[in-house]
Amino acid sequence: MFLDKDFLLNTEAARTLYHEAAEKCPIIDYHCHISPREIWEDLRYDNITQVWLGGDHYKWRLMRSAGVPEKYVTGDADAHEKFLRWAEVLGKAVGNPLYHWSHLELRRFFGYEGILNRDTAEEVWNLCNAKLRSAGYSVRGLIAMSNVETICTTDDPVDSLEWHEKLAADPTFRTAVLPAWRPDKAMNLEKATYLDYLAQLEAVSGVKIDSFAALKQALKARMAFFHEHNCRLSDHGLNYVMYAPAPEAEIERIFAARLAGAMPSRREEDAFKTAAMAFLAGEYARLGWVMQLHYGCRRDNNGPMFRRLGPDTGYDCVDNGASSADTAAFLGMLEEAGTLPRTILYSLNTNDNAAIDTILGCFQSDEAVGKIQHGSAWWFNDHFDGMVEQIKSLGALGYLAGFVGMLTDSRSFLSYPRHEYFRRILCRVLGEWVEEGMFPDDMDTLKEIVRGISHDNAKAYFGFAEK
Amino acid sequence: MFLDKDFLLNTEAARTLYHEAAEKCPIIDYHCHISPREIWEDLRYDNITQVWLGGDHYKWRLMRSAGVPEKYVTGDADAHEKFLRWAEVLGKAVGNPLYHWSHLELRRFFGYEGILNRDTAEEVWNLCNAKLRSAGYSVRGLIAMSNVETICTTDDPVDSLEWHEKLAADPTFRTAVLPAWRPDKAMNLEKATYLDYLAQLEAVSGVKIDSFAALKQALKARMAFFHEHNCRLSDHGLNYVMYAPAPEAEIERIFAARLAGAMPSRREEDAFKTAAMAFLAGEYARLGWVMQLHYGCRRDNNGPMFRRLGPDTGYDCVDNGASSADTAAFLGMLEEAGTLPRTILYSLNTNDNAAIDTILGCFQSDEAVGKIQHGSAWWFNDHFDGMVEQIKSLGALGYLAGFVGMLTDSRSFLSYPRHEYFRRILCRVLGEWVEEGMFPDDMDTLKEIVRGISHDNAKAYFGFAEK
Amino acid sequence: MFLDKDFLLNTEAARTLYHEAAEKCPIIDYHCHISPREIWEDLRYDNITQVWLGGDHYKWRLMRSAGVPEKYVTGDADAHEKFLRWAEVLGKAVGNPLYHWSHLELRRFFGYEGILNRDTAEEVWNLCNAKLRSAGYSVRGLIAMSNVETICTTDDPVDSLEWHEKLAADPTFRTAVLPAWRPDKAMNLEKATYLDYLAQLEAVSGVKIDSFAALKQALKARMAFFHEHNCRLSDHGLNYVMYAPAPEAEIERIFAARLAGAMPSRREEDAFKTAAMAFLAGEYARLGWVMQLHYGCRRDNNGPMFRRLGPDTGYDCVDNGASSADTAAFLGMLEEAGTLPRTILYSLNTNDNAAIDTILGCFQSDEAVGKIQHGSAWWFNDHFDGMVEQIKSLGALGYLAGFVGMLTDSRSFLSYPRHEYFRRILCRVLGEWVEEGMFPDDMDTLKEIVRGISHDNAKAYFGFAEK
Repeated sequence: MFLDKDFLLNTEAARTLYHEAAEKCPIIDYHCHISPREIWEDLRYDNITQVWLGGDHYKWRLMRSAGVPEKYVTGDADAHEKFLRWAEVLGKAVGNPLYHWSHLELRRFFGYEGILNRDTAEEVWNLCNAKLRSAGYSVRGLIAMSNVETICTTDDPVDSLEWHEKLAADPTFRTAVLPAWRPDKAMNLEKATYLDYLAQLEAVSGVKIDSFAALKQALKARMAFFHEHNCRLSDHGLNYVMYAPAPEAEIERIFAARLAGAMPSRREEDAFKTAAMAFLAGEYARLGWVMQLHYGCRRDNNGPMFRRLGPDTGYDCVDNGASSADTAAFLGMLEEAGTLPRTILYSLNTNDNAAIDTILGCFQSDEAVGKIQHGSAWWFNDHFDGMVEQIKSLGALGYLAGFVGMLTDSRSFLSYPRHEYFRRILCRVLGEWVEEGMFPDDMDTLKEIVRGISHDNAKAYFGFAEK
Repeated sequence: MFLDKDFLLNTEAARTLYHEAAEKCPIIDYHCHISPREIWEDLRYDNITQVWLGGDHYKWRLMRSAGVPEKYVTGDADAHEKFLRWAEVLGKAVGNPLYHWSHLELRRFFGYEGILNRDTAEEVWNLCNAKLRSAGYSVRGLIAMSNVETICTTDDPVDSLEWHEKLAADPTFRTAVLPAWRPDKAMNLEKATYLDYLAQLEAVSGVKIDSFAALKQALKARMAFFHEHNCRLSDHGLNYVMYAPAPEAEIERIFAARLAGAMPSRREEDAFKTAAMAFLAGEYARLGWVMQLHYGCRRDNNGPMFRRLGPDTGYDCVDNGASSADTAAFLGMLEEAGTLPRTILYSLNTNDNAAIDTILGCFQSDEAVGKIQHGSAWWFNDHFDGMVEQIKSLGALGYLAGFVGMLTDSRSFLSYPRHEYFRRILCRVLGEWVEEGMFPDDMDTLKEIVRGISHDNAKAYFGFAEK
Repeated sequence: MFLDKDFLLNTEAARTLYHEAAEKCPIIDYHCHISPREIWEDLRYDNITQVWLGGDHYKWRLMRSAGVPEKYVTGDADAHEKFLRWAEVLGKAVGNPLYHWSHLELRRFFGYEGILNRDTAEEVWNLCNAKLRSAGYSVRGLIAMSNVETICTTDDPVDSLEWHEKLAADPTFRTAVLPAWRPDKAMNLEKATYLDYLAQLEAVSGVKIDSFAALKQALKARMAFFHEHNCRLSDHGLNYVMYAPAPEAEIERIFAARLAGAMPSRREEDAFKTAAMAFLAGEYARLGWVMQLHYGCRRDNNGPMFRRLGPDTGYDCVDNGASSADTAAFLGMLEEAGTLPRTILYSLNTNDNAAIDTILGCFQSDEAVGKIQHGSAWWFNDHFDGMVEQIKSLGALGYLAGFVGMLTDSRSFLSYPRHEYFRRILCRVLGEWVEEGMFPDDMDTLKEIVRGISHDNAKAYFGFAEK
């Protein structure tokens, strides 16, 4: 039955694995986009529209796809009207992960066991809003309800990390909230705003950035600062993993030209990024950080809407042009230099699954179980089939038992049930293998694997301290 | 049991949805390659070989793959011999959609409930030929048997549309037969025959085509003519969606050089096509037409057979080189100019499914439900797995309920059961989701969705008048 | 139940097809990397580690992925320690084909019906080693146990074929062991060792290689020699199928420059390889040989490990950059010249499945059933899902009944159960189609198809003489 306690668990083995192993593990959400300030301030919400439609471009895209006017999506319609429009669209969103996520959120946070659609919208609106006004529905309350052990946010090198500092010092809040290093703005010298960004980085680092060498010094200073604040992983958003090695002098020349206002060619951009990424990777290796590479995305495809709403508003798509040869060559260059850190590869293009899984195997070592990881099905792909395919591909081509598992990548405090969704799918895949006679009915081994992927592997891999 | 009334309907929900919703919907076949003249003349066939093997390159390919000499494929063997060869190959064509399509055609049009193979070939030959000689087996009879509401043919800008005109004026034939605009020959300036084509276009449009501006005028005149004849959609066959913007003066220079006999470079070809496509898209938007982009195909790969048999004879393959970034950039250019029409994207490369589904979401608006559509699994891909994948990908990444559904893309009057095939697969997917607890057992909502995808969405989207 | 007699056979039809048709067919292993010398010398093994971990980079990769130190992988740890480490990793390798292959090998060769993991490692170690010391466990014994009719090894043009000659002359060994022609070293003029290789080729062919024409003469002489030794197929390992036609004079210039020590540009490399491959293809067509093209691989990605262990040690990955347009163009060039031999295409990138299957159909003819073949799921892809996808794609887009089926591509004498694995999966797919009503329950036709794909098609296609 839809979304009952055995949702997605279609075999006895799956049910055992989920209920006896996966379900009980705390969440380590090692990559998301929530605001540490909102956690510190323990934000509360006025209504469910605010939580659900305030910043969720997944939902915005679905509404636009159903022909809903922008007024009811990001515009000035009132919260109640927006919710009714959303409910009507969701009610027909068969096959979309938002259907599952939203209903999981309604059940887990609000105790609503019905179906949300046009007919029930009013009932759900009232129920959720009443709950949101009650005790325990602040941001910290929602996190506590979700049994979250560790959260890693996404932070710019210029960030003060003041909220992380306050949270670390607060013994009343038991979830560790750690920064993660996302230096995209320092890498993207092709952006019109690059020099403005460098000015900020200069100010916060105290390093005058008049050369590529100086840029590296500034970043190094900031990494030391992040490390002191318990940062243990980085994150890069790339169109593709570039590989365009060039002499240091050439990089300095490209950087100097950019400082003087000239825009780089595509070749120069790739050369600069290759060098800058290689430098950072080396620092990550030295500090013991994990490097996350997210690629295969083309952003901001709709000019008029970008000018109206800015980035991350639902106008990105898959870029299918990433070369697996370049990805392998970039990692090979680091390996050659002895500076390859633990690394997680994520491509938004699911066609890259097998290529990624074969790249992993070229760079493994005894530094860690699964030193190089294939990240969980990401963004557009963290739906049922996307997760199943990532799990099966990693299983067939690598060592699934060493997988560090799920993250939300979310901007919302209600997204933790995506970990439940992932764990159910993981247990389902394993359960089917048992039922099909493709793996022995050895529940001890399988539970160990499930607990590993749900929690233990990530804990060992990232080396997070518990709070 | 093979091809019984519940063929492919493996759940109770699927059976309900198919028999109570999908089965009853009339067919809107908005993209095919049948001849309006043959409809007007109400053509009859001498034998089943003529219908099945007369022009069907799907069947020809399968026969060649089984080692059948060309004599029995497109050569001078007699119709009976050809049929026996075809029956023998088909009898072993396990896994091929032709196996399903052919048997559906035998059942729906000829009432034959058995299996076609070497042993039954003679029986089927006699049965079909007898039926073909009986009343009701003319072209119009076959269309009427299939409950077809609307047919869109594929027509060149120079076409007189005389047969469409006659059909429109004939109250005895109840299916609307509308032209669709396919201006490939006006786009493909790299072809040796381009100047000959321009001469035809000059003659029919009355515009002297001595510049790119004049070409646009000629096309505009023909679009007005097509619009008067109830054309409401266009269709483009592309290797890939190009994006190579260039100044108008550059396009005029490229076009002038071509008029003078010089062949364009690849860069020039892309620039010209980008400009010409952008112009046409703007006109489509103005006229309220839908733009169909079919890409991912490399044609005429076998030189000797091309010289012997011409195009569309079974020598095309998937081109895997289309860049999703360029596709997004091309649509983005139109959006920027405010000239993006309703658009349907089809790639022959199924690896593009997810990229297409994420591109859609970047350009949706309240102009239509699903303004930008992912076309139904196309050509090589409209088999069981191909359709399932297209449906699931669109569901996971977009708004499946708004999908405009199936078309035959066929050259045969017996192909309408492909709509049945598609609808069965659609209901099967939905039924499995219900049985798996992935969507509620809410038959009212699901029937509405099924009727939408089978018929109602296309009707609303294209704005066809009923006859 | 795990790996019982009906392993993977989840329908009645599948069980019938496997046990009554597939299981009984002898093996034709038309592509592998085993040593003919070891067969001639009838090598014996000291222990299971030697057999399993001596040269199997699949297992090495899995161990490294699980964080096992290289000492226990390819290093100087003792055989017993290595085996314990392997057993521990394998015990958790859920989803990996090694789990199935290894257990099939334990059952079929050693009669071990249990599960190999940390707990049973000692027991398995003792059991296997005892068996390996007993009669019948030499290389020839293992081959005989596996019912192998024909083996094709992989041989360099400079090979003396002395072991093949001895084996051919030995009436006591009933399996035909034939050479296969793998001239990669003669093609790869971009390698630093190319001139050294040419010196070897000169010595063995007696042709002074001072021009491209002379290279062709030398290769032609060696092909005649291979043909006399019953070679009937060739094999090429390519990053991608190149298509860069250039005048003969240009190829001579490129080759002369290489002889003089200059390294070619990428363009020159592609031009040379296009010409050299086209020459070889023509010779294959003349001799009646089959051409195998293996592509989509990027090799030796880990520099430090390459220097330590050499090639084929587990550091290769999928290259996703192969252009289907170039593949089609290369075959089209041969067709134009009338020199296209029977050909098998294999891509390591499973995304190429559909493109390959559509390319096949462009070049079929009555020279053979399935003149152009899509090779069985290869290397990283010959796992459950990979095989299923290759079979379904070939079925949907081509003539599955004409498929030449499985090969091991293995370096081990224990790998023949991979044929069993493939046949079970084939029967499973066919059985599901029957159970789903997608093909009639016509066991005679299906058994004929199964026997064809398991054995008969390969025998007819390659034209091997039985011994």
